[in-house]
Amino acid sequence: MTDLIRSWLETANDPATPFPLNNLPFGVFAAGDTPRCGTAIGNHVLDLAALQSTGLLPDCEFEAPALNTFMGLGKQAWEDVRQKLTDLLRDGNETGTVRAALHDVGSVTLHLPFQVTEYTDFYAGRQHAFNVGSMFRDRESALPPNWLHIPIGYNGRASTVVVSGTDFHRPLGQMKAPHEEIPSFGPCKRLDMELEIGAVVGLPSQMGKPISVDEADDMIFGYVILNDWSARDIQTWEYQPLGPFLSKAFATTISPWVVSKFSLAPFRCATPPREKELLPYIRDTGPMLYDIDLAVSMTAKGGPPTVICRTNYNTMYYSAAQQLAHHASSGCAMRTGDLLGSGTISGPDKGTYGSLLEMTWGGKHPLTLDCGRTRTFIEDGDTLALHGHAQGDGYRIGFGPCTGTILPPPTPAA
Amino acid sequence: MTDLIRSWLETANDPATPFPLNNLPFGVFAAGDTPRCGTAIGNHVLDLAALQSTGLLPDCEFEAPALNTFMGLGKQAWEDVRQKLTDLLRDGNETGTVRAALHDVGSVTLHLPFQVTEYTDFYAGRQHAFNVGSMFRDRESALPPNWLHIPIGYNGRASTVVVSGTDFHRPLGQMKAPHEEIPSFGPCKRLDMELEIGAVVGLPSQMGKPISVDEADDMIFGYVILNDWSARDIQTWEYQPLGPFLSKAFATTISPWVVSKFSLAPFRCATPPREKELLPYIRDTGPMLYDIDLAVSMTAKGGPPTVICRTNYNTMYYSAAQQLAHHASSGCAMRTGDLLGSGTISGPDKGTYGSLLEMTWGGKHPLTLDCGRTRTFIEDGDTLALHGHAQGDGYRIGFGPCTGTILPPPTPAA
Repeated sequence: MTDLIRSWLETANDPATPFPLNNLPFGVFAAGDTPRCGTAIGNHVLDLAALQSTGLLPDCEFEAPALNTFMGLGKQAWEDVRQKLTDLLRDGNETGTVRAALHDVGSVTLHLPFQVTEYTDFYAGRQHAFNVGSMFRDRESALPPNWLHIPIGYNGRASTVVVSGTDFHRPLGQMKAPHEEIPSFGPCKRLDMELEIGAVVGLPSQMGKPISVDEADDMIFGYVILNDWSARDIQTWEYQPLGPFLSKAFATTISPWVVSKFSLAPFRCATPPREKELLPYIRDTGPMLYDIDLAVSMTAKGGPPTVICRTNYNTMYYSAAQQLAHHASSGCAMRTGDLLGSGTISGPDKGTYGSLLEMTWGGKHPLTLDCGRTRTFIEDGDTLALHGHAQGDGYRIGFGPCTGTILPPPTPAA
Repeated sequence: MTDLIRSWLETANDPATPFPLNNLPFGVFAAGDTPRCGTAIGNHVLDLAALQSTGLLPDCEFEAPALNTFMGLGKQAWEDVRQKLTDLLRDGNETGTVRAALHDVGSVTLHLPFQVTEYTDFYAGRQHAFNVGSMFRDRESALPPNWLHIPIGYNGRASTVVVSGTDFHRPLGQMKAPHEEIPSFGPCKRLDMELEIGAVVGLPSQMGKPISVDEADDMIFGYVILNDWSARDIQTWEYQPLGPFLSKAFATTISPWVVSKFSLAPFRCATPPREKELLPYIRDTGPMLYDIDLAVSMTAKGGPPTVICRTNYNTMYYSAAQQLAHHASSGCAMRTGDLLGSGTISGPDKGTYGSLLEMTWGGKHPLTLDCGRTRTFIEDGDTLALHGHAQGDGYRIGFGPCTGTILPPPTPAA
């Protein structure tokens, strides 16, 4: 395990800060002006476009309102910029030029860190797949027959991926409960969240050119926390035979900071033991999962936050590198800015489940929040916040929060 | 029914040309130089960027290698440009400036007409859904219970949408036949095509803002012919429970020309009678389907083409406007460049089925091509060509061919 790298910026040395010098996550911010690329350090955001304009960083189009150009440059360029930033911010190296490029985090707004090219959502949590299968089928056939062989995934919707803090309307949709004769259209009644980690593709691959798991791992620029909001009643009625569609298309929230693979390197861990041998094209070649502590808190309007889940990304059955290698295996071209959701991260017991569907077992066992109110699914005005960090020895690598508040449903179209 | 609008360009007045003055489809071409926007007229391509630079057209960024900017301007801008082009090319109005902007169609290459933002594939062919359901389930429960209420769709993959004439490798993938104990990875053995019409979204909609069917119809810029190539063996093994993924992600081919809604206006027709009343948000408000004759031909390497299907888009149960209104209904933001596949277009009998899966009934009844060879699914070196046109009185509105040839599978990743 690496030690804390001390910075001349004192808030970066606090053991509780999500953004020590070891982290240097990438994002997009604005200080009342045009959004551009930055990194988080202690209580500050460092303006990478400003640094670049003084010649202290190579030209990576940091003045753009998205990380995509930088992300497309590949591993060497990412490492070079990281090394340069580490030198500039290291204890003893303070300069006025760098200090002038710092903004207090409270004075900036954070934007979507990259333009999401396409969004794919996977289903790699074994416990989650088992829980959902138990509820919708039965315990014996809970896990689909392909699940231990394929990192199951489906294409999601990129147009509604939003940055943490973006509130949105409760979705409308078509639904039909089993006892109802005909479907109806209206506001979702079973609105849920899903705790996930998103892998962000940096280097692209070509159409018709499969990639190995090692190549896939090298293509990944970094990771975000991701909330795959889900409308369960819409999903139940629409998803057969072609999968979830509008029940997942209304919003997906990601954390403002993309944490680079380099800062997470000390926290790499292996996937759990294989229950069936994988085919060679997606076989593990080394530890490619990460030990990341995760938590979910729920806040009813005006109340205090209640932690409703604590779990860890290291429980997933497939790594993002395996998912990406599988994704490209048919010849599918992967592009800079593609976002891959891990699938819901649920540990073995109730307090570690990553969705309300599982926590309340389909709405049968309501949660009681610290304010005394109970919840089966999400109500208007509720805020969900997802948190994650890798715990080092005297420092932590954080992502910033991934939050969203539900507004009342919109007026239907005329 | 409108009459032919005569042009001073004689080849545009040929009753057999797909590109009379009534059509004016939009695309992207290059004449050995930088790709830019153009329209097809008779045997020629008219350079819209060149015309714009002489001041004869409004500035719609026609010098870009994609129609997206123009598409995002909306109905009035589309109509203005169409009116202007009609005047410039109308019989009697010949000028040297316009003639200088014409390229012989044989001297240009055609590119992807627009940047595909996201691709959604629907399932709106009643006969196709029934046929597939009959094969995979049984005749009694062939049609899923939601099918007559929801324009079923799923998110496809945009990164591999290619223009007609782009050859590609047979996909690799994981598959498992029912009699096999464990899955294997290798070249697809049941490679299929699907005949579809693609609707191209011009005007965007906002996240959280549902749209009516009329608004949706106004947002559609035009239509293309679309081949939703499908790997049936990969699909069978992967698609439960989250839908088709890599079996559809390796390639989708579209015609080079986007035919505008204005040229298709005389061919509007109503959807077939509703078997169940639709919910108001997707109810028909007028004729929004189109009478477009479609055909598929298959060519084994070195052989002559064999027509294996003739059908019509007017058999679909849902219009693209209904699909788009449904798509946005949950709050999903729709963007300029979104492509909506209609679903496989299959008529009532065997000669009108739009996929090999249906034509050969799952591979049980091989087709015999005119060269004498037989086919259940697509073999390496085979070319599939999809054709479509609306037949007017003495003229036709065509899309250009939508073709692709299958190359041998690629080498798997190391």
